[in-house]
Order: sequence, then structure tokens, then C-alpha cells
Amino acid sequence: MELVYTGKTKNVFQLEDGHYLLQFKDDVTGEDGVFDPGANTVGLTIEGAGLAGLRLTSFFYSKLNEQGVPTHYVDANFDDATMTVKPATVFGNGLEVICRFKAVGSFLRRYGAYVKEGQDLDAFVEVTIKDDERQDPPISADALAMLGILSLEEYEILKQRTIEISKFVAAELAKKGLTLYDIKLEFGRDAKTNEILLIDEISGGNMRAYKGDEYIEPLQLEKIMLA
Amino acid sequence: MELVYTGKTKNVFQLEDGHYLLQFKDDVTGEDGVFDPGANTVGLTIEGAGLAGLRLTSFFYSKLNEQGVPTHYVDANFDDATMTVKPATVFGNGLEVICRFKAVGSFLRRYGAYVKEGQDLDAFVEVTIKDDERQDPPISADALAMLGILSLEEYEILKQRTIEISKFVAAELAKKGLTLYDIKLEFGRDAKTNEILLIDEISGGNMRAYKGDEYIEPLQLEKIMLA
Repeated sequence: MELVYTGKTKNVFQLEDGHYLLQFKDDVTGEDGVFDPGANTVGLTIEGAGLAGLRLTSFFYSKLNEQGVPTHYVDANFDDATMTVKPATVFGNGLEVICRFKAVGSFLRRYGAYVKEGQDLDAFVEVTIKDDERQDPPISADALAMLGILSLEEYEILKQRTIEISKFVAAELAKKGLTLYDIKLEFGRDAKTNEILLIDEISGGNMRAYKGDEYIEPLQLEKIMLA
Repeated sequence: MELVYTGKTKNVFQLEDGHYLLQFKDDVTGEDGVFDPGANTVGLTIEGAGLAGLRLTSFFYSKLNEQGVPTHYVDANFDDATMTVKPATVFGNGLEVICRFKAVGSFLRRYGAYVKEGQDLDAFVEVTIKDDERQDPPISADALAMLGILSLEEYEILKQRTIEISKFVAAELAKKGLTLYDIKLEFGRDAKTNEILLIDEISGGNMRAYKGDEYIEPLQLEKIMLA
């Protein structure tokens, strides 16, 4: 098996049967040693973060697959902190699709003139392009289509699927008394069928979960959700 | 007549008949003494810039009114550098609607991973919110609707009208051998009828016009266009 990509929080290996293996690392995004799911840089290393992320991802993606929501997830190996996934191509150089239930983070920094911090948002979807050099700028559906990153039809699928998946995650968190503030999803096209797939992961590393006013750290989230 | 607003490039007076009077100043946007139509601050004062802006605005808005494109323009007084306009309310705290024919400026800064500098764009429309403190962030149609700034139906009108007006301006420039790179329009709702109106101005101060590779300064643009 061949290492094909070294990411911020995962290494990617190509398997001989055409699948890929994602190895979850203990590195998490943040700045100056403080975890921030919206950050662009690896801010710190938390022992056990990789396995916790994998276990949560396996939990959510198995359920999504069962519900007929297409994901790249095939199976997981908790001993090695690895996940086997279907091959997929990303849109352009990769997109982040954010679903917001509360006005916090970069949304608040941009639109603070129109919303209060923590105000409820109704599963509001927005897209940013993955571009560390340009601080992941937000992008409109029209711009995505015009730049050839995806079509307006694909955008609508992406948006509807993001709402569906995010509401499912929010409902799972609610069962444990937690509130989902926002979540960041990634999608790609199935390398064989071109179908739009949920890729990457769903874990504490790409969402903000709260219990009342208390932010729940990624490791703690995994413990609460899988207890 | 009463001064009701002091803007970066215009003062606004209320007239007794319900109309408003815009007084064009010689201040133009830019940074460090260099003119930049995309800038948020007054960068310099150019003698005659106000009158030149008014004369060009009068030229474009008269033609647009004749063509049945609704604008706030009523008439102009070149001796006083003032323009009489219909009362209008802005969307939220004001929007800037940008139409791009070439990839330059903030568009290039955001999406440089996907476009080359100066690449042709087909009258591409994007919206930013006027918010100096937050550097006029771009905003999607969905966010505008969700934040109650305008409806999706109004957004479509705004977008189609922006394309129509910008293509008209580009065609007028082309008659003089000039190329329009991008233009920034403002719209509001007619205070009486709620109809969407083109407001503010169209002049060298809110567009980038080129003759070949040479940028045409606002004062020079007015001379070329109205020669």
C-alpha cells in the first residue's frame, strides 16, 4: 500500500483493490495550541484524537449508508485508526460545505452587522473553497458554476444533502442532550459512477457541539456520543 | 434644504418636494493616495472629480431612464455638482453589486487558484455588503434572503438588472475603444412604489476602464466618454 497524500489530520494510502485507506492522526486544527474546527492550520496534537475521530465517523457514516445517503465509507479498523473508503475526486481543489444552526465563527465575523452571536440559523448552508493561501474564501453557487468547479444542479444536490446530513447529526447529538452549532462537510464525485458522495469525516474535529453554554471538546464528544 | 448624510464621496440633502440632492465631492476612494474603485476609504482628493463623476452619471442614467431601466436619477446641475434623485431605501445597510468582465481586484484575490489575472468573465455578478468594519464581505443569495436583506426574487431582479446595465455601460465604453473590467452598482427600493431602482452613480469612481493595457483614470474617462 502506497502513501499518496499527507494531510493536516489524515494520511491517505492507496490499496491494491482500488480503495483508499485513511489513517487518522492525532493532529487537530487550531491556532496557538487552541483547538478550532474552523482553523486552517494544525494547532495541536491530542493523544487519542485520531481514533476518537475515526470512531465517530464510523458511527455516523454507517448510519448514513444504511439510510441510503451515499458516502465514501466502506469500513473501519479501530486498532490501526484507519478507515477504508471508495475512491472519489473532489470538486476543484476541494470545497468545504458548512451547515450552520447558530451564528458563530466566520459567519459571525462576516455578517455580524445583521446577526447576534449565537442567534439560531435554520440549517444555513454556505461553501468555502479549500485554499490555505487565500484563507478558504466563501464562494457563491454562481461563482462555483462559472469557475467550472461544479454545476448549479450539483450545487443543489450538495446543498440539500448537506441539510439532510447535518440535521441527522444534530438529531443524534440532541439524543445526548447536545446542541450542534455548525458542521463542516466535504463532498466528492464517486470515481466510478460520478455520484456525489459525502467524503472525509464527521467528528468533533469538524463541528462545534455544545452542552448548554459549554463547548464540548472532540475527545469528550466521542465519549458522550458512543457511551 | 437639510444635510441628511455625509458620505465618502457625496453629501446628501433632503429637498422640500421629497426628492434628495446628491452633492458630488472631489474625494475618491483609494489607499495611500492611489485611486482604487474597490477601496473602502477615501484615498485622495482630485480636483474636478466630483463634477466629472456627476457628468458621467448624468450621461448613463439619462440613457437608462430613456431605455426604461428604473433609476433614481431625476436631473443634474453641473454648476453646483449636484444631482436630484428620487427617495429610495437601501437593502439592509446597503449592498454593492459588482459585475465583472475581467478577473481582477478582490475576485482575483479570492479565486486566484481558479482564474488567471485578467481572464475574461461573462458579466459575472456578485454582491458584497457595505460594512467598512468587516471589509465589505461577499454574500450569497441564500445568505441575503436568510438575513432578511432581500428576497430571492429580488435577488434575481438585481442580478438580471446588473447584467443589463453593466453590458450597456460596457457597450458605451466600447464605442470609445475602452474595455470595462468591472463595475460596482448600488440598488434600492423606490420609497413610494417599492420598485427596485439603480441608485448612487456610474462614473470612473466605481468602475475599472482600460484602453488596451492602460488603466483610464476617472477624470480621463469622463473626457473620453463625453468628448
